[in-house]
Amino acid sequence: MTKDSPNKKVKIHFDPDNVDIVVEKGENLLQAAIAAGVRIYASCGGAGTCGTCKVLIEEGQVETTRTEKVSDEEYKQGVRQACQSRVLTDLTVYVPVESRLERAVLSREKKVAAEALATGWRFKPPLNKCYVELPPPTLKDNTSDLSRLLRGLRQRCSLSNISVDFEVVKKLPKALRDGDWKATVTTLVTAVKPRAGDRRRPRVIDIEPGDTRKKHYSLAFDIGTTTVCGQLLDLNRGKVLAESIAYNGQISYGEDVITRIAYCQKPGGLKRLQRAVVATINGIIKELLTQSQVDIRHIGHIMVAGNTTMTQILLGLEPKYIRLAPYTPAANFFPPVEADSLGIEVSNQAYLFTFPAVASYVGGDIVSGIVGAGVHQRKNLTFFMDIGTNGEIVIGNSDWMVTASCSAGPAFEGGGIKHGIVASEGAIEEFNINPSNLEPEISTIGGAKPKGICGSGLINIVAGLLEAGAIGQNGKFNRDLPTKRVRQGTDGYEYVLSWAPETQIGKDIVITEVDIDNLMRAKAAMYAGCQTLSKSVGISHSDLKQVIIAGAFGSNINVKKTITIGLLPDLPVDRFLFIGNGSLLGARLTSFSTDLLDDARRVAQMMTNLELSENVDFMNNYVAALFLPHTNAKEFPTVSKRLAKLNK
Amino acid sequence: MTKDSPNKKVKIHFDPDNVDIVVEKGENLLQAAIAAGVRIYASCGGAGTCGTCKVLIEEGQVETTRTEKVSDEEYKQGVRQACQSRVLTDLTVYVPVESRLERAVLSREKKVAAEALATGWRFKPPLNKCYVELPPPTLKDNTSDLSRLLRGLRQRCSLSNISVDFEVVKKLPKALRDGDWKATVTTLVTAVKPRAGDRRRPRVIDIEPGDTRKKHYSLAFDIGTTTVCGQLLDLNRGKVLAESIAYNGQISYGEDVITRIAYCQKPGGLKRLQRAVVATINGIIKELLTQSQVDIRHIGHIMVAGNTTMTQILLGLEPKYIRLAPYTPAANFFPPVEADSLGIEVSNQAYLFTFPAVASYVGGDIVSGIVGAGVHQRKNLTFFMDIGTNGEIVIGNSDWMVTASCSAGPAFEGGGIKHGIVASEGAIEEFNINPSNLEPEISTIGGAKPKGICGSGLINIVAGLLEAGAIGQNGKFNRDLPTKRVRQGTDGYEYVLSWAPETQIGKDIVITEVDIDNLMRAKAAMYAGCQTLSKSVGISHSDLKQVIIAGAFGSNINVKKTITIGLLPDLPVDRFLFIGNGSLLGARLTSFSTDLLDDARRVAQMMTNLELSENVDFMNNYVAALFLPHTNAKEFPTVSKRLAKLNK
Repeated sequence: MTKDSPNKKVKIHFDPDNVDIVVEKGENLLQAAIAAGVRIYASCGGAGTCGTCKVLIEEGQVETTRTEKVSDEEYKQGVRQACQSRVLTDLTVYVPVESRLERAVLSREKKVAAEALATGWRFKPPLNKCYVELPPPTLKDNTSDLSRLLRGLRQRCSLSNISVDFEVVKKLPKALRDGDWKATVTTLVTAVKPRAGDRRRPRVIDIEPGDTRKKHYSLAFDIGTTTVCGQLLDLNRGKVLAESIAYNGQISYGEDVITRIAYCQKPGGLKRLQRAVVATINGIIKELLTQSQVDIRHIGHIMVAGNTTMTQILLGLEPKYIRLAPYTPAANFFPPVEADSLGIEVSNQAYLFTFPAVASYVGGDIVSGIVGAGVHQRKNLTFFMDIGTNGEIVIGNSDWMVTASCSAGPAFEGGGIKHGIVASEGAIEEFNINPSNLEPEISTIGGAKPKGICGSGLINIVAGLLEAGAIGQNGKFNRDLPTKRVRQGTDGYEYVLSWAPETQIGKDIVITEVDIDNLMRAKAAMYAGCQTLSKSVGISHSDLKQVIIAGAFGSNINVKKTITIGLLPDLPVDRFLFIGNGSLLGARLTSFSTDLLDDARRVAQMMTNLELSENVDFMNNYVAALFLPHTNAKEFPTVSKRLAKLNK
Repeated sequence: MTKDSPNKKVKIHFDPDNVDIVVEKGENLLQAAIAAGVRIYASCGGAGTCGTCKVLIEEGQVETTRTEKVSDEEYKQGVRQACQSRVLTDLTVYVPVESRLERAVLSREKKVAAEALATGWRFKPPLNKCYVELPPPTLKDNTSDLSRLLRGLRQRCSLSNISVDFEVVKKLPKALRDGDWKATVTTLVTAVKPRAGDRRRPRVIDIEPGDTRKKHYSLAFDIGTTTVCGQLLDLNRGKVLAESIAYNGQISYGEDVITRIAYCQKPGGLKRLQRAVVATINGIIKELLTQSQVDIRHIGHIMVAGNTTMTQILLGLEPKYIRLAPYTPAANFFPPVEADSLGIEVSNQAYLFTFPAVASYVGGDIVSGIVGAGVHQRKNLTFFMDIGTNGEIVIGNSDWMVTASCSAGPAFEGGGIKHGIVASEGAIEEFNINPSNLEPEISTIGGAKPKGICGSGLINIVAGLLEAGAIGQNGKFNRDLPTKRVRQGTDGYEYVLSWAPETQIGKDIVITEVDIDNLMRAKAAMYAGCQTLSKSVGISHSDLKQVIIAGAFGSNINVKKTITIGLLPDLPVDRFLFIGNGSLLGARLTSFSTDLLDDARRVAQMMTNLELSENVDFMNNYVAALFLPHTNAKEFPTVSKRLAKLNK
């Protein structure tokens, strides 16, 4: 750090957002952008290694540590990595489209009858409303307001053995009198049934004058590393009233959980990440309320499914030990928390529940997915995969479950890929290739001009290039192809998907050998996880009658092509079932049924975690899977046969 | 209000405290004194009716609404009622000794074997510490920190079915590692045993690295309308380590619960009274910690006994409906509250429990006293009286209890009496009178020069004057007595207890007919309550084998003289047992035994409240008792006989 005169203020203007912020001279430019609400993508969390936060300095001066991520030409134009730049003077900064995080056009979840997978549960939300009419006090019956209420609840609603939140006692005298001794009480089941014979002890969390039973809502959330999805639920009708998705605001601090955990070690880091995801949640809640016209006062409960790291950061719990061997989370079962104490903008009676977790890398999101898909109720052996930055796999049925998790890296969500972007408008999604001239046929999300490649697009592209013989099974380009699209680029060989004039970003969109290598490593991790887990329980993939695939990613993939690259096992296509966002599904269903909430705890307890991090089998399987589809052709007989035929 | 230019600041200097404060011009002088920390006595809560907040304006100007409480001479000297004065200019104000609240010299509780009254309880504090040594995590056993802890508690301490506070989960990873997987866990029983067969569900409220079992403390408090008493308890040894008493800071806002409730109706009033008592509690805690050298971090629990109004104000619960017919409190059972959320300066893990109440005027203090005295364990019929501003009476045994409460007014604590003061240094306590020349023999608390009369002094004086024939049974002075001490004063006839030169206040200390009348009304209410209650359960006073008397007041009274004025029933002196502060005793014992904590709830539930407020019998008994000792001589045969003999 150079010695600047402290406290000197400078002004930064960001385009195209047209936003100004005043910061201290010397401030980091990425931090300044985050503070200004300008959404910049920064996969590596500001380490300078990903090059995704490039901006154009149009006016003014910054002091930058230059890395290889900025070419000479870019540097001359004024392109800098925001995370590597300190602000020296007033600035005008342009954030190019490829560096921008935009609100996703992600609500394209395939509507399958996912709700019908879990069976046998009663519609009985943990959040409940009871209406009571009480006899007004008299001199002969002047017991306390609370005793009167409890007596009414016992007599009219068969509710006994309840605890009462202090905040309710505070509101009680006024509420009872305002409603002329008619009131609606909200109760919440905050703990699972302790054991057979023990009675539940619901908690009274709210009281309102009069009959408000019709206004009875809750929220369900999936807090993903990349995206956060929320739904507003009508607990009388068991219906989704509104849904919204947004990027997790933590992305600007790093793309995967490891980077985020590392960021938490910086002073104030944990607090900052917590605030970032809470801001995302608050934004979604605001939108859900607008969409549904529901009053925030009538939301009593938030059910959250997230992986262990996301959960701990949301709750403000130091995630350090998740990352250090032997990888212990702070807790598997988190007590319910007052939502407003986390900064979530709901009424002060609302509680936030987080799904129980199994281990550091097997979180509440997978437990939620399992419960949502009813895997724990099935007699038949089921294989469940949640594909994402952190891949999770479960094999089991109603009697037992084994689970493993593997860090696939962000390739499936467009991270670590030269032109990779998350699945938003302009992302290349579909890809076909003419085998004779190797000309592509692409389509993008929303039909816009191409801007980059999303995860499912990446799979389709690599599968297509492989089948067309443009790349070999080692993922390398054949060097003597009759096309200008395959060429030597700055990062080695690459294939041009879209020429500069046809794109939104004004330069050629390519897929490089490095990108293909990243995808291969991601799919190898996932597949090796499947293999290792299957072998550990003594089954082969062909035994599997059904494979349930979950993940925001899972809603868009082309099964056949996904098998082709060796990500999914080589089984008939009809054995796969896509349920979209499984963890959101589970969060929703447990909001509707206390039975399933109990199931979640039971599932978390019954799951045995197979730790892959230092598993030798896994490492061997991983290395063997670093091939398209696999070094062992017998693992993928159908694909091998087809490739052999095509290559003839 | 006159139109002052707003925001003009003036400075007030208070002597003898030598304290300055800057306030806005127009501020009420009593409020300014409270804000400056100058302790002024104001029985009526600033209504202007009690005249106890008189101050001398030495320099500067105030605007005062003059009342009859300030004589012409005083007014000329510059004496003003602080509550009736608005500050116009910079001031120098002298607070005379009789208007000052000084730290009481009240720790004179008669040491009886009160602890031995309640029997059959096990020493098993609701606050418990368990030490566990856990196996460190390995790759084969990398369950979460919380699961590891719960497993250890189950295996080592037979603790299962517990809930864990979120704050503990937050501290957990660091605490376990700092202590090298050895830790001490603090658990708290926060709810009574729900019903036979149900298991308790203790709450883990703290975790500390290493073995801290030796540091295991809690606090017990009696929050009285007039005084607050606290004790610091060693929960390993069942011992009182320190004790402290202070005036309830709310006194400056009114002397009895009715005035306080009325004050709560003013904007911000409830908050102000809550802060006042919390400040008193914090002061006591500070002193207890200093005395005992205990670290505040090791206090996990505060047990509070107080009447219903004191409890509700402490908890910040609107007390309005306590005062309005049909007199309903907000709750009989208050949930445990995080002590720091009330502003109490203890660690954030500490919970505050309040004793359950029976009714608006039968509070947790009496329940505490009953439990402390073991009334609920006795087969024999017991009569229990708690004498204070709010008098409470219980008749019963282990099978049933009936209770009643009567507003005696503050006379017993020196309130509403011309020279009445609370029992502190300089208060006239003992009184004997020479029947021939009517010269008094007085002694004061601490042996200081007389400053005023405390409650027990008042009883002794009135009994003495009665036996000497200076006053009649109607409480009026005989007009033709051979002494200069009986004279016509500004408030009617009076008796001079101490001539001005012998006093601290520089004027004659007198007892007036009005004072005697106030005492008669207080004792009449108390005695009428006893009569009405006895009759309602069909017993006569002579059936009573034991009468237990409690109250800070109760520790100093002379039984015989108390019977003489007709406050206690006319029974042999040896049937009375004084236990001093019963509610503090109960708070201490329940801190030592979960059994007694359960008993407290049972006691509150089994007590039947006889509402006296609109009871015709009570009113008749009250009017009949407005005589010394009583209009019906048969009620007090011994006294009547003695008086007849003396008057011959």
